[in-house]
Amino acid sequence: MEEYSVIGKRLPMIDGKIMATGEAQYVGDLTLPKMLYGKILRSPYPHARIVHIDINKAKKLLGVKAIITGKDTLGIKYGISPELADEYPLAMDKVRYIGDEVAAVAAIDEDIAEEALDLIDVEYELLPAVFDPEEAMKKGAPNIHDHAKNNIGVMTEMNIGDIDKGFGESYYIRDDRFINQTVTHCSIEPHAALANFDSSGKLTIWSSTQSPYIINEGLATTLALPKSKIRVIKPHVGGAFGGKIEFFAIDFCASLLSQKAGRPVKIIYTREEVFNTTHGRHSVIMELKTGVKKDGNLMALKAQFIADGGAYNGNNGVFITFLNGFFLTLPYRVNNMEYKGYRVYTNKPVCGSFRGYGALSPRFAVESQLDIIANEIGMDPVDLRLKNAIQVDEKLPNNFKITSCGFDKCIQKSCEDISWKKRGSKLEGGRGVGIAGGSYIAGGLFYPTKSSAAFIKLHNDGAITLLTGASEIGQGADTILCQIAAEELGLKIDDVRIQSADTEITPVDPGTFWTTFLAGNAVKLAAADVKKQLLDLASERLEANVEDLEIRDKKVYVKGCPEIGLSIAEIVSASIQSHEGNPILGKGYYSLDLVPPNLATGEGNLSVAYNFGSTIAELGVDLETGKVKVDKVISAIDCGKAINPMAVEGQIEGCIASGLGYALWENLYRTEGQTLNPSFLEYKIPTSLDMPRTKTIIVESIDPNGPFGAKEAGQISHVSIAPAIANAVYNAVGVRIKELPITPEKILKMLDK
Amino acid sequence: MEEYSVIGKRLPMIDGKIMATGEAQYVGDLTLPKMLYGKILRSPYPHARIVHIDINKAKKLLGVKAIITGKDTLGIKYGISPELADEYPLAMDKVRYIGDEVAAVAAIDEDIAEEALDLIDVEYELLPAVFDPEEAMKKGAPNIHDHAKNNIGVMTEMNIGDIDKGFGESYYIRDDRFINQTVTHCSIEPHAALANFDSSGKLTIWSSTQSPYIINEGLATTLALPKSKIRVIKPHVGGAFGGKIEFFAIDFCASLLSQKAGRPVKIIYTREEVFNTTHGRHSVIMELKTGVKKDGNLMALKAQFIADGGAYNGNNGVFITFLNGFFLTLPYRVNNMEYKGYRVYTNKPVCGSFRGYGALSPRFAVESQLDIIANEIGMDPVDLRLKNAIQVDEKLPNNFKITSCGFDKCIQKSCEDISWKKRGSKLEGGRGVGIAGGSYIAGGLFYPTKSSAAFIKLHNDGAITLLTGASEIGQGADTILCQIAAEELGLKIDDVRIQSADTEITPVDPGTFWTTFLAGNAVKLAAADVKKQLLDLASERLEANVEDLEIRDKKVYVKGCPEIGLSIAEIVSASIQSHEGNPILGKGYYSLDLVPPNLATGEGNLSVAYNFGSTIAELGVDLETGKVKVDKVISAIDCGKAINPMAVEGQIEGCIASGLGYALWENLYRTEGQTLNPSFLEYKIPTSLDMPRTKTIIVESIDPNGPFGAKEAGQISHVSIAPAIANAVYNAVGVRIKELPITPEKILKMLDK
Repeated sequence: MEEYSVIGKRLPMIDGKIMATGEAQYVGDLTLPKMLYGKILRSPYPHARIVHIDINKAKKLLGVKAIITGKDTLGIKYGISPELADEYPLAMDKVRYIGDEVAAVAAIDEDIAEEALDLIDVEYELLPAVFDPEEAMKKGAPNIHDHAKNNIGVMTEMNIGDIDKGFGESYYIRDDRFINQTVTHCSIEPHAALANFDSSGKLTIWSSTQSPYIINEGLATTLALPKSKIRVIKPHVGGAFGGKIEFFAIDFCASLLSQKAGRPVKIIYTREEVFNTTHGRHSVIMELKTGVKKDGNLMALKAQFIADGGAYNGNNGVFITFLNGFFLTLPYRVNNMEYKGYRVYTNKPVCGSFRGYGALSPRFAVESQLDIIANEIGMDPVDLRLKNAIQVDEKLPNNFKITSCGFDKCIQKSCEDISWKKRGSKLEGGRGVGIAGGSYIAGGLFYPTKSSAAFIKLHNDGAITLLTGASEIGQGADTILCQIAAEELGLKIDDVRIQSADTEITPVDPGTFWTTFLAGNAVKLAAADVKKQLLDLASERLEANVEDLEIRDKKVYVKGCPEIGLSIAEIVSASIQSHEGNPILGKGYYSLDLVPPNLATGEGNLSVAYNFGSTIAELGVDLETGKVKVDKVISAIDCGKAINPMAVEGQIEGCIASGLGYALWENLYRTEGQTLNPSFLEYKIPTSLDMPRTKTIIVESIDPNGPFGAKEAGQISHVSIAPAIANAVYNAVGVRIKELPITPEKILKMLDK
Repeated sequence: MEEYSVIGKRLPMIDGKIMATGEAQYVGDLTLPKMLYGKILRSPYPHARIVHIDINKAKKLLGVKAIITGKDTLGIKYGISPELADEYPLAMDKVRYIGDEVAAVAAIDEDIAEEALDLIDVEYELLPAVFDPEEAMKKGAPNIHDHAKNNIGVMTEMNIGDIDKGFGESYYIRDDRFINQTVTHCSIEPHAALANFDSSGKLTIWSSTQSPYIINEGLATTLALPKSKIRVIKPHVGGAFGGKIEFFAIDFCASLLSQKAGRPVKIIYTREEVFNTTHGRHSVIMELKTGVKKDGNLMALKAQFIADGGAYNGNNGVFITFLNGFFLTLPYRVNNMEYKGYRVYTNKPVCGSFRGYGALSPRFAVESQLDIIANEIGMDPVDLRLKNAIQVDEKLPNNFKITSCGFDKCIQKSCEDISWKKRGSKLEGGRGVGIAGGSYIAGGLFYPTKSSAAFIKLHNDGAITLLTGASEIGQGADTILCQIAAEELGLKIDDVRIQSADTEITPVDPGTFWTTFLAGNAVKLAAADVKKQLLDLASERLEANVEDLEIRDKKVYVKGCPEIGLSIAEIVSASIQSHEGNPILGKGYYSLDLVPPNLATGEGNLSVAYNFGSTIAELGVDLETGKVKVDKVISAIDCGKAINPMAVEGQIEGCIASGLGYALWENLYRTEGQTLNPSFLEYKIPTSLDMPRTKTIIVESIDPNGPFGAKEAGQISHVSIAPAIANAVYNAVGVRIKELPITPEKILKMLDK
């Protein structure tokens, strides 16, 4: 029997066609009358004091309509909170990295704007700079921010259980140092913003963003405007992956330039600007010490993580130490843990959130070390993982409440698929198989709001429009939310129109945060509100009790009597034309009812639901060149109910592609703060030709709090690929690479030893 | 004591600034990537059979992307209802007026599109045509539509009381023939549409319309699409006055061309097209017979109205006979009435709705004749009007229920202002004063829906966004609805954002139909829904009963304790961050709970509320040239509570200007169906230099059903100006002009007699 008619179906994305044809409109496609083009002048130095800025020559250039520097701003810093705000939208006094924003110009075309940048004279006084986070923490290192002693921006400490006792009871203790590199998101669409500050005092901005509400908040703060006077609209977004979740100089400069010029201003970052100035993944130096019993029981875990934050906190950067700590043990049971995490300022571009944010670094370290330990204690690494795997309903030492969990099933199913037990992991001819586990949160971290709401409008023909603040960024959010509304209301997905992510008209939502879980629940409740009204109205007209009615195929039926029914269109029309004229409007909201985890008191929880997954990589290493060729990746994920299995697979495949690049090739190489490879010519990402065969396994642990049992599918497959590859490389050629990416050079160097 | 803080205030229009600066975006300002420009080929003949259309030459023109003729359409007629639908979106077989749509072209620019029109060869077989409605009704006249015998498209008959008895009891009986001319709306913005039919099968159209829902319905019908797959968005509209309330060829052609070309298509009518093809006011030939008692009591009224409908019914044209009949007696008490109204097809452009639709023709006839009668029976025309004036709570013979009425007050106040009794109406030196009364409906005629609904979203800063389907077209609807929401919620108008008139996202509404009354009530209820939730939440937090709380200045207070309060922003934030996360969404709807009037049964009512008004004109006639110079116009209106007196005055002044042109100058001169003056060079409308001194008097009869007692202000002042001027001309020089406009030629001709 089919439980659902829309949920669980392999439906194409509702905006797939118009994206394929090029009709979908991105910021770059938008034009407004009298629109100007903006460009940003950036610091060529990693650390310097601004002595003087002369804009006189630039001002005189024909076609230049506005120029702004720090002096034209209100000098208000932005960040996640007033305490953590450390960055001016345009530099006031100092520049702290190569690319730091100094001035901006709006002109009638991009060439003139570019030319005007060249005419702005900035006098700098160079300051000593520091680029290595460990160097930056040392006494006597150049001080980047006055408030940050030893350049430590954020520090998180976690202590669970009794770490000494844990190590004391351990049979084997292992100590390693791991490092992961900085990488960037590589969204196909660069960051872009079009701002229109009109003479009524209202600012409208179309931004390529994952969270209109964060842009709204950033602009409200830095421009000192009421939030409701700033309308942020997210048009189609060409990928984001955590890289467009923050408030950036582009949004600020477009807005202030528009205000100054009295005309709309569009800024689109060049690819170089994206590489050089947007917020990539933190490089983290990880010292990790783990103790196990002889039977593999994880007894203690002690870690010190130093994240290279770059020059500022950004909106999201400050979460890194907190998340690294919480994701350290997940998805395993460890009763004794000690964690110290530092986010350190350096004179480099800022780091921020990236797919699987906060989970990739600890997973690389822990999952690599688990394999080392398994090897040392003579245990199959799969068995070691299964032994310590978290189970459903387990209350963890760090207070996480696991309401659904398919972790062991993920491991088991993927191992079966690769015949792990039969074939083993160390194959012949420089070939190996590696595994790693992972976990992520499906409904947690309530920033900028923990609540999501939805409106539903019924059309006369029985179709609906869904108004949601959730942000479609290419990941399929709109499709998933339409499926949820359609299922609840007995509609086809084609009967659902959606309007999403517009701070002025769509109800509150944090943006691309737990969209399926959070917005999905809100949409389901709004649809249920409509359903209740429809059934009440039908009940009167069909002279049947509400509980005897059901909605299917745009009709309300008396259960068991398919011949007695009314179409939704009939009910809507009759209701509108009735005495009361009720057009049947639906509203719903859902909140992540979470108290942040407090390790001291044992209160709180990080997420309403947790995802789990495991990745297996099979590969060969060329002993001559050190080159790794990944032949197959099996990714099993527990995403709860898969609302749309095809969309889930798309997410998993994207995670694999991006994770492959992260594991083997991608790295933002920087010397003295200067990015050396800010283009796709030098920064290598996997193409379709580089892709291994992939296999995706969906494990549906139905979560009691998820909409139709769904959790999340966009991040979880990404977290465990790098360690799976590292473990496979070890199994192939006996070489343990502890620093990402796993380049041929590193392998050859180790092989030479 | 101030009852209200936002209602009743003289607030500038919320979009006033951006309209003044040119920032407001009209269809003409919108561009989309790959947008094409459309042009329509029109019939050069008033009546002809289409033998053949050859588009081959046009197709070959470089830059032409799509051409459509009737053959490319589904051949579905449109109109107010399937029975009354008599027009193909592009001619299939016949053309019926000069300007009838035959084909349309989309090209990369307007010049090429225009050139392509010239390359389309249409072979016509000419048919005999008829241009005069009385001629058209005669036996043997050319038949314009197969279904319409004697070319009578619509006929309405009304019989109230006993007409013979009424005349039998009359002391004086008067019989006259009056005629009013055809005029056009003269909106500054021409009709315009931009359609984007994308490859997902969804049609989005930005149309300069008064009613997105009517465009939606027209497109759904003619393109056989589900209504919910057609998104109609109304951007800023540069005036409409009833002239943009219908579905036009422009909307259809832009949409079908976009579908054919696979690219967006914009069409903007030339001024000539607006004059030649949009739906102006009906010219009506009125035979009117009225009987009065010696004391002035109106005893009987018999009328035959023949309206020149032009070639088709249009959406609204069919209402003319019905409205003329109902507005015949209003605002007077007449117990015996017989009315026959005909709308006759002629081979001329279609006529439709225009400010004060249906009321101007009968008012010109009746109010002119009342003065004639007053003169004949030796009674002051003011006294005659007051004697027969409708009073509040009076149930009229035609079933109208008068819930509020300030008609006699309007007359009295305006007469006081002009010192009518003291100065008299016949002044020296060819100068005279004339008066006329009027009435209109404030919440009636439920087309396309009698229901309006509103959503309200609360912003974190305590401001709101209002989502309403009502259509701002320059008349101030958005401002009025924001005032209503602000008042109900204790906000300032600056705290209200509004999103209106978008069929996909805004809740149901008919468009510019009784906006203040209908949408105003819906908005008030949506705000009350929000208010209730705010008070409930505040009640918990302030530990006070809801009934002890009040909302003022964005705060909830304990009554009498202004120091104990919470800002709305605090309540919203706390609620979102609470356990439940309720973001406080409001919804409301209101329905015109009306049964259409049925004269036979005595059931029904035309409108939930009625407006009243009177106009006095003082003028001089140049006996040499016959030229009329109106020096002063006093317009008194009972609009219920004036939500925004400045906006009401703006409406009244607009009514006076337009009414002055209608009375004295404006006329679409046509010969053999060809408009002779389709431009502002030849068609004279009043400029600011032509304007008399104006005085507006607002009489606030608080209507029990209106939002805050409001009714309507946009139409009522327009209905009584022409007869007031006609009566003043008579009082000035003793000449009775019975055919509008009152030109110098007509006056001189009568003076010569």
